[in-house]
Amino acid sequence: MQSSRSKPCSCPSLKLREVASMYFTMVAAFLVILVVALQGSVPRESDFPYKVPLDPQGLLELSWNVSYPEQAVHFQLLIRELQFGLLFGMSDRGEFENADLAVLWSDGHNSYFGDAWSDAKGQLHMDSQQDYQLLGARRAPEGLYLLFRRAFSTCDPKDYLIEDGTVHLIYGILEKPVRSLQAINISALHGGLQRVQLLKPNISIPELPSDMKTMEITAPDVVIPSQETTYWCYMAELPAGFPKHHIIMYEPVVTAGNEALVHHMEVFQCAAEFDSFPHYNGPCDSKMKPDRLNYCRHVLAAWAMGAQAFYYPEEAGLAFGGPGSSRYLRLEIHYHNPLVFKGRRDSSGIRLYYTATLRPYDAGIMELGLVYTPVMAIPPGEDNFILTGYCTDKCTQLALPAAGIRIFASQLHTHLAGREVVTVLSRDGRERQVVNADRHYSPHFQEIRMLKEVVAVFPGDELITTCTYNTEDRSRATVGGFGILEEMCVNYVHYYPQTQLELCKSAVDPGYLHRYFNLVNRFNDEEVCMCPQVSVPQQFYSIPWNTFNRDVLKSLYSFAPISVHCNKSSAVRFPGNWEKQPLPSITERLPEPVPHCPPAAGAQPAAPVPLKLGQLRR
Amino acid sequence: MQSSRSKPCSCPSLKLREVASMYFTMVAAFLVILVVALQGSVPRESDFPYKVPLDPQGLLELSWNVSYPEQAVHFQLLIRELQFGLLFGMSDRGEFENADLAVLWSDGHNSYFGDAWSDAKGQLHMDSQQDYQLLGARRAPEGLYLLFRRAFSTCDPKDYLIEDGTVHLIYGILEKPVRSLQAINISALHGGLQRVQLLKPNISIPELPSDMKTMEITAPDVVIPSQETTYWCYMAELPAGFPKHHIIMYEPVVTAGNEALVHHMEVFQCAAEFDSFPHYNGPCDSKMKPDRLNYCRHVLAAWAMGAQAFYYPEEAGLAFGGPGSSRYLRLEIHYHNPLVFKGRRDSSGIRLYYTATLRPYDAGIMELGLVYTPVMAIPPGEDNFILTGYCTDKCTQLALPAAGIRIFASQLHTHLAGREVVTVLSRDGRERQVVNADRHYSPHFQEIRMLKEVVAVFPGDELITTCTYNTEDRSRATVGGFGILEEMCVNYVHYYPQTQLELCKSAVDPGYLHRYFNLVNRFNDEEVCMCPQVSVPQQFYSIPWNTFNRDVLKSLYSFAPISVHCNKSSAVRFPGNWEKQPLPSITERLPEPVPHCPPAAGAQPAAPVPLKLGQLRR
Repeated sequence: MQSSRSKPCSCPSLKLREVASMYFTMVAAFLVILVVALQGSVPRESDFPYKVPLDPQGLLELSWNVSYPEQAVHFQLLIRELQFGLLFGMSDRGEFENADLAVLWSDGHNSYFGDAWSDAKGQLHMDSQQDYQLLGARRAPEGLYLLFRRAFSTCDPKDYLIEDGTVHLIYGILEKPVRSLQAINISALHGGLQRVQLLKPNISIPELPSDMKTMEITAPDVVIPSQETTYWCYMAELPAGFPKHHIIMYEPVVTAGNEALVHHMEVFQCAAEFDSFPHYNGPCDSKMKPDRLNYCRHVLAAWAMGAQAFYYPEEAGLAFGGPGSSRYLRLEIHYHNPLVFKGRRDSSGIRLYYTATLRPYDAGIMELGLVYTPVMAIPPGEDNFILTGYCTDKCTQLALPAAGIRIFASQLHTHLAGREVVTVLSRDGRERQVVNADRHYSPHFQEIRMLKEVVAVFPGDELITTCTYNTEDRSRATVGGFGILEEMCVNYVHYYPQTQLELCKSAVDPGYLHRYFNLVNRFNDEEVCMCPQVSVPQQFYSIPWNTFNRDVLKSLYSFAPISVHCNKSSAVRFPGNWEKQPLPSITERLPEPVPHCPPAAGAQPAAPVPLKLGQLRR
Repeated sequence: MQSSRSKPCSCPSLKLREVASMYFTMVAAFLVILVVALQGSVPRESDFPYKVPLDPQGLLELSWNVSYPEQAVHFQLLIRELQFGLLFGMSDRGEFENADLAVLWSDGHNSYFGDAWSDAKGQLHMDSQQDYQLLGARRAPEGLYLLFRRAFSTCDPKDYLIEDGTVHLIYGILEKPVRSLQAINISALHGGLQRVQLLKPNISIPELPSDMKTMEITAPDVVIPSQETTYWCYMAELPAGFPKHHIIMYEPVVTAGNEALVHHMEVFQCAAEFDSFPHYNGPCDSKMKPDRLNYCRHVLAAWAMGAQAFYYPEEAGLAFGGPGSSRYLRLEIHYHNPLVFKGRRDSSGIRLYYTATLRPYDAGIMELGLVYTPVMAIPPGEDNFILTGYCTDKCTQLALPAAGIRIFASQLHTHLAGREVVTVLSRDGRERQVVNADRHYSPHFQEIRMLKEVVAVFPGDELITTCTYNTEDRSRATVGGFGILEEMCVNYVHYYPQTQLELCKSAVDPGYLHRYFNLVNRFNDEEVCMCPQVSVPQQFYSIPWNTFNRDVLKSLYSFAPISVHCNKSSAVRFPGNWEKQPLPSITERLPEPVPHCPPAAGAQPAAPVPLKLGQLRR
């Protein structure tokens, strides 16, 4: 997706010099009306709480806010070195084809702003309905600010539907004058993508106690390696005798200038079984890294680009310190350095806010989804194959308190083939509520997200986690497991009060899978069983994949009984029979959300808005 | 769906007496603007070419026209005996739940018109977007005329999308004053349904020759039996020595007063193998009916309620008369008499327009879809199970002329479980064109429909016919076959020039079906084969149906090779190997049609329009 091209020397170095006031043509009269109509609600510049750099150099900086009453996002885009305009937009997975774009372009004399879309070949078209609404443009010493608005849903089939979860933002820089929108050659653009959660939940910040203290878990002046991807590991330690506290909030600490390089950061607590852990400060994949660091996997805090501070609900905090809790912490930082900057120093990390005045409840983390086992597999060449993991009514009946638990945050997790993760709460066979859904999930963007609404789960409820995978680039089956080329389907839910239930997951019954292998072998023309007693992955690898074998595997997964892991810890099950359990049956699905379309949307002119951006520099 | 209730005696007999001029409240000011805006295109009353009675008594008469440029239907509804209003609308299959309704109602003092919808429980709600646009109301001696307009597509999720093919219209009569829309109790209404093809194709009528003659094939003053459903059979005869002619048009002849009773009519030509056929005039299911009449199945003409005259394209006509063509014709009339009128006499039928000046091409009829065989079966309890029949590239390559054929009309056919029929033309693995699609198909409404666009089919093209079935009311599998409780999936396409290809259909390879039966038996817990060598229907009936067996049958049908019937007549195949043929592979689907929403739609007020309908009668 990323491509760059040096400017041809024959081209005069034209640059936009200054921005004068905007004017509106008659065609754009609607816009005047709109701006007037919005005056009360047009945000001030200081009013964009979310910010993310779009490109690795930070030349494009996006700030935004979300208005749930208006069902719209207001964007403020800072363009530090404007040339002949830029493309900004959204697409399903960050591709430049089939994208929904706002375009600012100049032909060398005049500048225009318009809502466009790209077709499957990447050709740009002016949209017949203009839904990126330009609200203003302003020149400042640091660059040009563009202010525009987009409704979540426009009901224009050419437009991207802004949903909860990950949004793939794309940008492209126009380095030469362009005569028209249609003349823009997307494949020759210098551009890229940035993933963000656009629709941040609108959560009121709980009151913080006066005895609150802070602790920074930060990298010790690390030199960021001059390579695209680095996972940096640094071991930190709580003071000896540190008593039990509640973490009630945390926030990122990013070294100034490195905003575009620090992709995500996590603080893990180590296992309490070990009295001590070695010090370490280096790449996580280094051979020098002590093996024991693999036992530091309990998430205390996680942040990813574009995320803000994380607040625990006022009744709960995350316990750390005290007996039965390891003093050792592992900080992991993912540096994303595609331009291979050298010698950049970094002291980023996470600042924990904690209190000794314990809140009423300890927060807990529970793992939902699929057991890590090869019996759950994805055929090769699939564009959206679905696997489902169940936390059954029987398990929640046994393990949850009568008053239930409250899920307030969630972190979705798959390996590289994951494209979509959804967890739904079902009660008495009826789907009641989406716990968390990311229809544009990317394994490269896993953050803990506060839920828009806290979800109450009671004994007898079912939690059903569905993951969608893409294996179009693979030639053999992808089985479940820990390996990076194996797959997972997990939702780590953050909840309170903490219970003994750490893990509520499932996998297909192995006996039924065995019948599937027999069936597939017998369905071949030979009608003979060719399968020796080999491992499950080997059996999956030897299947001659075709639509029949693929469809029957799907049918098996949606029919066969399951083995349920209803566990206190990864090795200790709750008492009971958990094998050959019936699949939860769903008699009523949640309705598909009906996009609400703003009535004003249809009134926008189907023509670009000319901008007076002043004289071009020669 | 139909229910009636006598008016309680305690209720004063209030009736609307006269209609004065309409007035608009401020809220309805939009409507004034709209009517003004539409003035140029508001149709005159004489301008509704299509007409159908809604109820069996003919008290409600719907006329309409279709504006393709406006993508809208203009309705004129004649209410002969207005009481306290009525409901008129559309729903998926004629049900009163989840329906899209225009409602005229009176509280005894004031009258209102509004766009409403009913939920899954039949409760009425005012629609937030008013898309049935009232254009006028007029009192005439015969009753009240309501004139209103509805866009095909409104993009309001509560609205019905008017598509090609069958539309289920519903009506309900308000016999008492109602205080509000919400107070209407749908289950207590006197109401019913009527099926029509709303979106009649906009076809220019070919020039008719000066030597055109007519012949009426009509019932000889039949007394309509006093029962709900009668299929009446009457044998007619061409004159001896009648030479070859071309039928170039036909139209219905319906006895005045019986418009609501004559549901559909067909004229069949008998088989040429028999020199003579007995005379007959009586019910088709009578034991007195001679068996030989079963050999009169070649359709010459077919009409169903709401249909107009049928015109052949100017290059073609349907041959009848002359050597090799039977002189005997069978007229079949379906009388629908739910109110069990007694003693009604009827001389309805079809008027054929024919010419001795033969047109360049004979028209032909070709049968597409599934072979009548039990190997194609539908499990019980399915709400939308799909079966597909293929006319393969190999067959069209062999049987069609290089210049191709032109399909200009189509009659879809299934038995009672059919709910949807679609035929698509595919070339080089890419779907190119819909030949005919009825997403609301009903086996009770089978008419020959002229296509909106003539479809050219060339050697090597594939014609793929997909039928969707509902077997929710059945407890055992429904197999393919001739019986009324067995199923068919057929599209009779009318085309020219006539070729030898009479039948281009398919069914799954029986060997693969056998493997399926084995597989299903082995997948049972016992893992033993329980199937003796019994008939295919018996094997289907003995399957313990569950989602797995159902899904695997689906997978089989979309994977296994097919047996192709590429036949000159039902018994004579074209030479070649037609067994174990590969399924046509489709690499590119037709895009889903994107509903085009009129920009004006959003501007309608979300409130009912008050009407001044004058004083109420006491």
